[in-house]
Amino acid sequence: MAGNSFGNIFKLTTYGESHGVSIGGIIDGCPSNIPLDLNLIQQELDRRKPGQSNIVTQRKESDIVQFKSGLFEGKTTGTPIAFEIVNADSKSKDYSHIKDVYRPSHADFTYQKKYANRDYRGGGRSSARETASRVVAGAIAKQLLKELKFTAYTSAVGNMQLNKDYPQLDFTNIEQNPVRCADLDLAKKMEDYIKQIRKEGDTIGGVITCVIQNIPVGLGEPVFDKLHADLGKAMLSINAVKGFEIGSGFEGTTMKGSEHNDLIQTNEQTSTNFSGGVQGGISNGMDIVFKVAFKPVATLMQKQKTINTTQTEVEMQGKGRHDPCVVPRAVPIVEAMAAMVILDHLLLHQARKNFRF
Amino acid sequence: MAGNSFGNIFKLTTYGESHGVSIGGIIDGCPSNIPLDLNLIQQELDRRKPGQSNIVTQRKESDIVQFKSGLFEGKTTGTPIAFEIVNADSKSKDYSHIKDVYRPSHADFTYQKKYANRDYRGGGRSSARETASRVVAGAIAKQLLKELKFTAYTSAVGNMQLNKDYPQLDFTNIEQNPVRCADLDLAKKMEDYIKQIRKEGDTIGGVITCVIQNIPVGLGEPVFDKLHADLGKAMLSINAVKGFEIGSGFEGTTMKGSEHNDLIQTNEQTSTNFSGGVQGGISNGMDIVFKVAFKPVATLMQKQKTINTTQTEVEMQGKGRHDPCVVPRAVPIVEAMAAMVILDHLLLHQARKNFRF
Amino acid sequence: MAGNSFGNIFKLTTYGESHGVSIGGIIDGCPSNIPLDLNLIQQELDRRKPGQSNIVTQRKESDIVQFKSGLFEGKTTGTPIAFEIVNADSKSKDYSHIKDVYRPSHADFTYQKKYANRDYRGGGRSSARETASRVVAGAIAKQLLKELKFTAYTSAVGNMQLNKDYPQLDFTNIEQNPVRCADLDLAKKMEDYIKQIRKEGDTIGGVITCVIQNIPVGLGEPVFDKLHADLGKAMLSINAVKGFEIGSGFEGTTMKGSEHNDLIQTNEQTSTNFSGGVQGGISNGMDIVFKVAFKPVATLMQKQKTINTTQTEVEMQGKGRHDPCVVPRAVPIVEAMAAMVILDHLLLHQARKNFRF
Amino acid sequence: MAGNSFGNIFKLTTYGESHGVSIGGIIDGCPSNIPLDLNLIQQELDRRKPGQSNIVTQRKESDIVQFKSGLFEGKTTGTPIAFEIVNADSKSKDYSHIKDVYRPSHADFTYQKKYANRDYRGGGRSSARETASRVVAGAIAKQLLKELKFTAYTSAVGNMQLNKDYPQLDFTNIEQNPVRCADLDLAKKMEDYIKQIRKEGDTIGGVITCVIQNIPVGLGEPVFDKLHADLGKAMLSINAVKGFEIGSGFEGTTMKGSEHNDLIQTNEQTSTNFSGGVQGGISNGMDIVFKVAFKPVATLMQKQKTINTTQTEVEMQGKGRHDPCVVPRAVPIVEAMAAMVILDHLLLHQARKNFRF
Repeated sequence: MAGNSFGNIFKLTTYGESHGVSIGGIIDGCPSNIPLDLNLIQQELDRRKPGQSNIVTQRKESDIVQFKSGLFEGKTTGTPIAFEIVNADSKSKDYSHIKDVYRPSHADFTYQKKYANRDYRGGGRSSARETASRVVAGAIAKQLLKELKFTAYTSAVGNMQLNKDYPQLDFTNIEQNPVRCADLDLAKKMEDYIKQIRKEGDTIGGVITCVIQNIPVGLGEPVFDKLHADLGKAMLSINAVKGFEIGSGFEGTTMKGSEHNDLIQTNEQTSTNFSGGVQGGISNGMDIVFKVAFKPVATLMQKQKTINTTQTEVEMQGKGRHDPCVVPRAVPIVEAMAAMVILDHLLLHQARKNFRF
Repeated sequence: MAGNSFGNIFKLTTYGESHGVSIGGIIDGCPSNIPLDLNLIQQELDRRKPGQSNIVTQRKESDIVQFKSGLFEGKTTGTPIAFEIVNADSKSKDYSHIKDVYRPSHADFTYQKKYANRDYRGGGRSSARETASRVVAGAIAKQLLKELKFTAYTSAVGNMQLNKDYPQLDFTNIEQNPVRCADLDLAKKMEDYIKQIRKEGDTIGGVITCVIQNIPVGLGEPVFDKLHADLGKAMLSINAVKGFEIGSGFEGTTMKGSEHNDLIQTNEQTSTNFSGGVQGGISNGMDIVFKVAFKPVATLMQKQKTINTTQTEVEMQGKGRHDPCVVPRAVPIVEAMAAMVILDHLLLHQARKNFRF
Repeated sequence: MAGNSFGNIFKLTTYGESHGVSIGGIIDGCPSNIPLDLNLIQQELDRRKPGQSNIVTQRKESDIVQFKSGLFEGKTTGTPIAFEIVNADSKSKDYSHIKDVYRPSHADFTYQKKYANRDYRGGGRSSARETASRVVAGAIAKQLLKELKFTAYTSAVGNMQLNKDYPQLDFTNIEQNPVRCADLDLAKKMEDYIKQIRKEGDTIGGVITCVIQNIPVGLGEPVFDKLHADLGKAMLSINAVKGFEIGSGFEGTTMKGSEHNDLIQTNEQTSTNFSGGVQGGISNGMDIVFKVAFKPVATLMQKQKTINTTQTEVEMQGKGRHDPCVVPRAVPIVEAMAAMVILDHLLLHQARKNFRF
Repeated sequence: MAGNSFGNIFKLTTYGESHGVSIGGIIDGCPSNIPLDLNLIQQELDRRKPGQSNIVTQRKESDIVQFKSGLFEGKTTGTPIAFEIVNADSKSKDYSHIKDVYRPSHADFTYQKKYANRDYRGGGRSSARETASRVVAGAIAKQLLKELKFTAYTSAVGNMQLNKDYPQLDFTNIEQNPVRCADLDLAKKMEDYIKQIRKEGDTIGGVITCVIQNIPVGLGEPVFDKLHADLGKAMLSINAVKGFEIGSGFEGTTMKGSEHNDLIQTNEQTSTNFSGGVQGGISNGMDIVFKVAFKPVATLMQKQKTINTTQTEVEMQGKGRHDPCVVPRAVPIVEAMAAMVILDHLLLHQARKNFRF
């Protein structure tokens, strides 16, 4: 009801501003007595952290997660798992260039109008730094869902689109290149393009595709909490996301039913998967496939006109270290959110399915 | 937690199968002492009902809504508003052709696997008939939001796309044609196309664009319940929807930041609106603009191969009266869901904003 | 968030005013494929209905429940179960004596102040008639919990207290007398007392004790959703309830720890049960035992001073048919609420406990 | 849905085990731009902390709260307020005497059965240490509700009962004595009695009365989220609480309606207040008055028989520093929970009441 919790049975609540003391969260409802590998969690965080390659922001954040509760002798206790990531880069700085300025296509204006008091340092709560907490919770969800495989990858940067469907791709390529594209040739071109964009002081948008494999049949709660509706909300809640489509998505609107229908075979698999693994809001056991659209980063190393808090026109320019393209670092965030949605729905589905008394 | 409630402060819970006794719902949390025009509610229902034109299903449903509670002397009482729409067309019929068959790209298979007991008559709960209840609640939300304007219209049928942006359109055209396209020339072509598709026993997808005007600044609850995330979930929960995008959406991923940023002017309006009226998950006062992708209707008047509940291959064909294209009747549903999301967020935002004690 | 839903995974939403068209509700989240005996549901309703004996109100309500959805071929489908109970006794009457009057210790004043528009006919939404919907949902919950035994009984009427602990009582007595006391001698005295009270035009309070047997270990979600906290809320939400205590309750505050501690035996049962079956908010497998305090009915057949909506002093007197003591008819309501709480917690507990993937 | 969140619009989520790294929480939904006095929050914590007098546990915890987010330049920002209280007393100790033992009337047995993995050090999550987080959130709620007055006090210790109604009491006495009784003579007797009980290695129960003054009319959401139902749940969720009653409570069940009804006067106040400030689940503007029953502390400095995790009978005895009576330190907890309930309901009520668009 206040926007900082996600999930129902496996529920994450996050806190923290980009330049405050720390960010972090509380996971409530994790099943108990499950062994957790904390290194795997840190590894997921490292995939998201700044400074990992030469095409992402060089902001200095080690992003070390510390756990405060909910674990005992290496296993979950069923009580809340609290964690904290200290903001190493939160030293006193000069924010005078943005203090009273509404940066274009940022949330400065809307936060100021909504809350009347705003931590203007580095975006405060509206900074994508908050998503580090999501990655922590998602990494835990993934460990509980070991039999499933969550794979996200960059499928477009600007007009450069990966025109292969995922069965034609080698997912092991993804972590072999800084763009996290599943095709190495295209990855190289995307990397060069991003570098060029950065040189121009500009930024560029992109698309991430996500595939969830080995998904059980039956997840999703019609009519409102359909599985893809919750996946869509999860993705749209990530900073800079402007679109979501599952299966055939917008392209599918141009198809006829006779082309689009996924015929069911005697093995209960469908011959095609235009549905993207969801029928009537419930997983049908086929791979779940969806795409997420990210707008270009709003902070430019170029002068832009805008206004300040007294409605006076001013000129401003981004300072410091920013991402020229958000998608490489967003790949683990997409996976994290997907894992949380699936785990939450799995727990909910099992609540009733296992009803035997 | 069970999928049949939508919203938090203004909350709709729906019930009903397509061929059961009735469908309906309960609206909990409607502000009290608000006059309601019941005719306006029925009018919205009439926009969704079968048989309204020659390009939609001819199923016979008068879809008359009856109210059971929550109203007194023409005004809301603040107590739950329950309503019922009797299923006129629920007579005993022959459903033997679908009883044991999983129709392709329908929810028969997933409902059977999830619930083990399924009302197979006409889709049961998975039928889009359920959305009539949403239209009722949305029509009430609209009356509470009289100062806002919710306008949805068909912007694509198959490959026929409306290539004008909404400021170039005359919204009064929308209800003047059975397709609910905002351009009358294109509407005629779309209508002819849909008729041809129907003749082929086939179906076709489409896109609906929705514009919300006169929206106040400040709606949306970051970081998870961002306004567009909740709009996205609402739209993705509608039958046949496979995609959602706000503002520049997927197209915006190909743009540079220098092209995409919406510069803020001294009147606090932006010069462009690639953001679609939402920044950082909060409305910025510009028009909210989003698109919704609908797949082609799964029921064909053609023979298709599929399997039955004993995993045997069978051939089946749709019977009776079905929509060749879902978008004309989905227009009021999109508006209804949008109105509910906005009202719920407005109430929530006001809860804290008006805090004075 | 608006007060008319109860439960999380098994969730009831109710609607309806005492003299409107009907009352009813929607149960969302009932496990699927469970056979339901509709007669048993009606039987529970009959235990609550007016006119069943000579010490309860003679209001004429047949209270027949009709189901609208969620059932197919005698079993639950997992979709919402909607039901309606038509208000037989809602004919046009003369309500002029209460229209503008705030009846003492009724909710007229608070509803008017909160909502500004109020259905004054017979209490409207604040009437205990609403609890019939709870009995329906509780009767379904009971059928899902066949291995458990829910037994409520009248343990006090005014100063007449049943001074035996439940193991000394024969529960088969309860339905053998109109007071629903578990001791037949005392029941007769209570009955006579209630008749005398009624003759005086007065009313009297009472206490209901509830015992839940064969409860599994592990239900309850600390630290806020402790099992007894949710039971307490459930009971306090019933009309006229002013107190709740579990196990030793208020009496236990006078005891020393050395007297009060329940020693655990090698069979994992405790030698005493001052805890009332809950330790740390979680069921420990012992019987759950709690008491619920009901105030005397506020409607008197005596003249009382009060004010009207214009703050003028007036005199008023109850008309028609009212209960002199609420507890006999409240017994099935207490059981119903208890069953819903237990089922909801059981489903929630199983969601995580059964986590194996 | 997992038990560690409380409230809806003003929502607290807590974490932490008594002997883990720290305890703390996240408050989501606090109205923005409200100045907070952090010293007042620490002062409330000091009222709850160990070692404050000679009749409470001498455990060494300084209980200093640190804030991590949600505050900027002394005011709330509307984003989550996270806080942490480090466990000073969490050093490595010898817990071998309780590691495998189920202490009588503690939650060891139920946590072990529910979660299968349990932090046995000092009670872990089931320790009342968790309530410090509630006091922090309650202290913030109180600051937002400056016009209201929340006063809790010890009204019984064992059989020693304070037989005066609150209008006869001087509330300034409460903080003048270590028992937090509002009558100084009785307080001295209670203090002596608690010391004697402690000398015996025993413990004793007690009752806290809470009065909320200057409450606005209209708070509470019938029919399930009645104001007193939520207050009851809040109180029953506090460690060691076994009973709750509002207004006349259990005593009121012995009264006749003609004695019990609160007559409404022309100033809209009632002549008596047997209702305890709530009618039909909604505040009527009169003082809210309720009582909370606390059982005797379960940890005794006496030998007790119990079993261990292998179902073998063992003898055990409490070690270290424990409270002989919980009520003196529970007084601020009762106030904190009450303040959170009232604030949450006030925000919710205002959401709809202020609906003007």
